[in-house]
Amino acid sequence: MRLPTAVNVFDVGCRDGFQMEKQFIPTSEKVAIVNRLARLGFRKMEITSFVSPRAVPQMQDAALVVAGAERVAGVTYAALVPNMKGAQRALETGVDELNVVFSVSESHNRANLRMPVADSLKNVADVISLARDQGGKPVNVSLATSFGCPFEGEVPRERVLKLAREALAMGAASLSFADTTGMANPRQVYELLGSFRDQFPDVQVTLHFHNTRAMGMANILAGLQAGVTNFDAALGGLGGCPFAPGASGNVATEDVVHMLEEMGISTGIDLDGLLETARYLEKVIGRTLPGQIMKAGKVKDLHPLACEQ
Amino acid sequence: MRLPTAVNVFDVGCRDGFQMEKQFIPTSEKVAIVNRLARLGFRKMEITSFVSPRAVPQMQDAALVVAGAERVAGVTYAALVPNMKGAQRALETGVDELNVVFSVSESHNRANLRMPVADSLKNVADVISLARDQGGKPVNVSLATSFGCPFEGEVPRERVLKLAREALAMGAASLSFADTTGMANPRQVYELLGSFRDQFPDVQVTLHFHNTRAMGMANILAGLQAGVTNFDAALGGLGGCPFAPGASGNVATEDVVHMLEEMGISTGIDLDGLLETARYLEKVIGRTLPGQIMKAGKVKDLHPLACEQ
Repeated sequence: MRLPTAVNVFDVGCRDGFQMEKQFIPTSEKVAIVNRLARLGFRKMEITSFVSPRAVPQMQDAALVVAGAERVAGVTYAALVPNMKGAQRALETGVDELNVVFSVSESHNRANLRMPVADSLKNVADVISLARDQGGKPVNVSLATSFGCPFEGEVPRERVLKLAREALAMGAASLSFADTTGMANPRQVYELLGSFRDQFPDVQVTLHFHNTRAMGMANILAGLQAGVTNFDAALGGLGGCPFAPGASGNVATEDVVHMLEEMGISTGIDLDGLLETARYLEKVIGRTLPGQIMKAGKVKDLHPLACEQ
Repeated sequence: MRLPTAVNVFDVGCRDGFQMEKQFIPTSEKVAIVNRLARLGFRKMEITSFVSPRAVPQMQDAALVVAGAERVAGVTYAALVPNMKGAQRALETGVDELNVVFSVSESHNRANLRMPVADSLKNVADVISLARDQGGKPVNVSLATSFGCPFEGEVPRERVLKLAREALAMGAASLSFADTTGMANPRQVYELLGSFRDQFPDVQVTLHFHNTRAMGMANILAGLQAGVTNFDAALGGLGGCPFAPGASGNVATEDVVHMLEEMGISTGIDLDGLLETARYLEKVIGRTLPGQIMKAGKVKDLHPLACEQ
């Protein structure tokens, strides 16, 4: 089994997790979680989203969250931006990196961003230019629904690769392939990422999986075998999918870090600190979250013998 | 990615799931679930356990469950037996196959079976002889804690392989490696099963994973890549681990079948029927179970477009 020796896990819970929460999370709590996480060894965190406050009221405090973040050395503080307006707002806050997103599926892009994919691509190009002009900030481009669209089903691999190539030609610093509604399976991940890495061996690529259908961790294993070394995850497994109300969220950061470390793959992340922060997050959110190591303990937490031998 | 084209999934929920339930499940409900499952294409099901009714009152109706099972053609009805007494009771019912279990970890075997591993091996040999004498019934031997012991931690691979070899020498028809408390990781699975299959390429081997620490599905992927084509799972993800009260149970049969079918690996199992039966099981048990496809729907269940384009 061909596996990397070290991997980056990026926490995106403060963006992809919080944005799904109906009840407004106080800005001070968001900032507290960002700052706790930042001290645990992450090299990048996506801490908020500069979407329309009317569309996503939870993210109305995006600028305040960035302002409250202690800028821990070695951590890239990234924010999602859906469009030029969001990019302008984000760049004013001094965030380190923008993550601009569009869907590779035409119908999902229209449903989510209210425009055809062709217009979204122009948008991506504009955001990249703006970020270059204003401080030379790198832009990661996220290809949503890369592993399937909840309306259309499978998206042809050639289409995903073509759109990835276009984003790179526009100046994307890096790419993410997102399994937006949890439709990816391990064979598909291995094949898509294998093809991508054959064509673009030097491009930094991140995989973003939701555990909606119980395949998130297996998809990470497949991604590792395809040579991917960057994975998004959300603390506690926060997040979700609007099409599957009772379903699980993003893969849980602490469960991903635990699996990688058990496999001998170094993440540089303090797992015990992560578990403490996940438990704190559960208190803030006020309900049990899907993360499993919080409940089961680590493999390395051995038990005393309960009975006489 | 080297993957098999067809795989057997064996449901063990009526044994490994039900035995963890505190409230007694009426025998008629147990039988109803066994009979529903048997019509869905399983080639083997473990339907009960002939343990001491005092130790596990839930399993006191083992003989009645076997008697109530419609014997669907093509299905092997197996039962777990911990010792000779259980094997005698099981053989009287006309069950097709016995599954005798011991732990490869000395301390877990003493805690669970109240005897040293050496005595358990004698027990295994006796059960195999008895089954041979009484109708020539095959005996599967399950090696519990093959991927780690909750008291001792990792169990040396050489020890696991040595005990597997001894079980085969005694006449085991097939073997199962069980991750009894959810400690396995994918690299370990690939390496242990790779070694085993190098040494015993013709032995039928089954992997039995719990999803206690979110690695169950990734471990199945690793097992597939090591050439394993038999996997245990429990309907709804029923089951659990006495050391992790809030933790998840066995891998969910319907989630495993869904992942395999999405990967193009044939299981021969009716997934829609399985989902219906899992939802029925939730009603019988009276609480939400961990199985995820029940909540999220299959990847192939597409959604209508909710908004104007």
